[in-house]
Amino acid sequence: MKVRRSDRLVDMTRYLLERPRTLISLKFFAQRYDSAKSSISEDLSILKRTFQDRGTGILETVPGATGGARFIPYILREEAQEFINQVVEEVNDESRLLPGGYVYLSDLLSRPDILRQVGRLIATQYLNQHVDVVMTVATKGIPIAQSVATFLNVPFVIVRNDSHITEGSTVSVNYVSGSSKRIEKMELSRRSLKQGAHVLVVDDFMKGGGTLNGMASLIQEFDAKLVGLTVFAEGEFTGKRLVSNYTSLIKVNAVNPNDKTIGAQPGNYLTTVFGTEMGNK
Amino acid sequence: MKVRRSDRLVDMTRYLLERPRTLISLKFFAQRYDSAKSSISEDLSILKRTFQDRGTGILETVPGATGGARFIPYILREEAQEFINQVVEEVNDESRLLPGGYVYLSDLLSRPDILRQVGRLIATQYLNQHVDVVMTVATKGIPIAQSVATFLNVPFVIVRNDSHITEGSTVSVNYVSGSSKRIEKMELSRRSLKQGAHVLVVDDFMKGGGTLNGMASLIQEFDAKLVGLTVFAEGEFTGKRLVSNYTSLIKVNAVNPNDKTIGAQPGNYLTTVFGTEMGNK
Repeated sequence: MKVRRSDRLVDMTRYLLERPRTLISLKFFAQRYDSAKSSISEDLSILKRTFQDRGTGILETVPGATGGARFIPYILREEAQEFINQVVEEVNDESRLLPGGYVYLSDLLSRPDILRQVGRLIATQYLNQHVDVVMTVATKGIPIAQSVATFLNVPFVIVRNDSHITEGSTVSVNYVSGSSKRIEKMELSRRSLKQGAHVLVVDDFMKGGGTLNGMASLIQEFDAKLVGLTVFAEGEFTGKRLVSNYTSLIKVNAVNPNDKTIGAQPGNYLTTVFGTEMGNK
Repeated sequence: MKVRRSDRLVDMTRYLLERPRTLISLKFFAQRYDSAKSSISEDLSILKRTFQDRGTGILETVPGATGGARFIPYILREEAQEFINQVVEEVNDESRLLPGGYVYLSDLLSRPDILRQVGRLIATQYLNQHVDVVMTVATKGIPIAQSVATFLNVPFVIVRNDSHITEGSTVSVNYVSGSSKRIEKMELSRRSLKQGAHVLVVDDFMKGGGTLNGMASLIQEFDAKLVGLTVFAEGEFTGKRLVSNYTSLIKVNAVNPNDKTIGAQPGNYLTTVFGTEMGNK
């Protein structure tokens, strides 16, 4: 039964949003809605226009008989900046102060609204790069990896400090924790990463960069390729970091234990991804 | 500038899908699209019809001046059954066999398409129940908790076996691992759960039920309320399980090490949620 345009628009929007970066053919939609390909083409141009006007993402349309549409989510600079400012404000709340100058952030990284935007921001950074898999280390990086993986529509893998029988055989590396200078071990299930895979590494927090550096070695052990490193928050670190090329959404500077203030501010994400204020990307 | 109906439908669909269980007012949409409330009402009835026809979810419309719409995602029995059958088929693959009769499942629980459906299924089970927070234990339950939390639009909390300085003060319980009979300890950040909160517990795998039972005690320690227990997979267990009231999406029965076959089959989810084949829910 032929489906009306209004109903098609609602269902196509949902269908495409749920399948980022996947080419859906005109033919598929034409059959799904018992409608002419020309009508579907018109529908797609409405989606394309609205997604662009609202900063939702790009709807790439592929012309020709085998053509179709592919939805690529992104975030615009203005919305990204607004989100980062909102997070900075939430972090600058003295009730988050923990003994030892640590800052409690776990609640933020367990809220679906925050995680969705964190995923969108990081996926936007790697919009034009080929990513096969997102990697993180247990425990708190997992929700970020999952959200980024959802927007890129690729699987994610979890590196662990303890081996687990249900992971099968693993590959492990030793690494030096950048802040404590201790030697630690991390491992990854052998079957979870293919040779030559393009790997994007994400994590919740970086201080000395030891963990990120460990993941970079692990990627080498698998003969895979590191695409980039992005963290939710970077902490202050005196001395040389073990990784130089990373992106952070926010920066949590020295907590002042005397007046109990937290010095959170935006990280280097906005300039890395969108260039300077005057930039034209 | 007044926005056309077609463009409104596309943007409203996205807007509502991203905010499950949240009441969005007619007034908000009317302003967003510079359109009359009566036109927005008509748009919402198109969304409602399409969401229902395609088994996407319910669009609850609240009438009156303060009214609006709330999207409640669900899955229909047929699609749930199809998904569970697909997972069972993927699990019944002898290359997943690990030493000791274990089965490798990590790849499934790191694929966004699988996690989305797992989240939808579990959210459907608790459609009519009040849930404030989803709880799981590190590591492999986390992606499931995150997906369920996204569909219910509530935060999730992660119980850990090791305390971590960035969690602040914690509450811990000892529990008996149902399969190994060892005494273990699990803990949760004190600030992550409020007294009286309604908690849904999810995990990737259950054998003796010791971990789930531990989480139930932890919930008691917080004076919170257990809403239900649902796991992705239950394994075979001889003896009495430590929890009796649980739901599983799939069952992974005794792996036969002689002929190297895995005996996966559907769990009790479909009958628990939809009743028997002849049932009318």
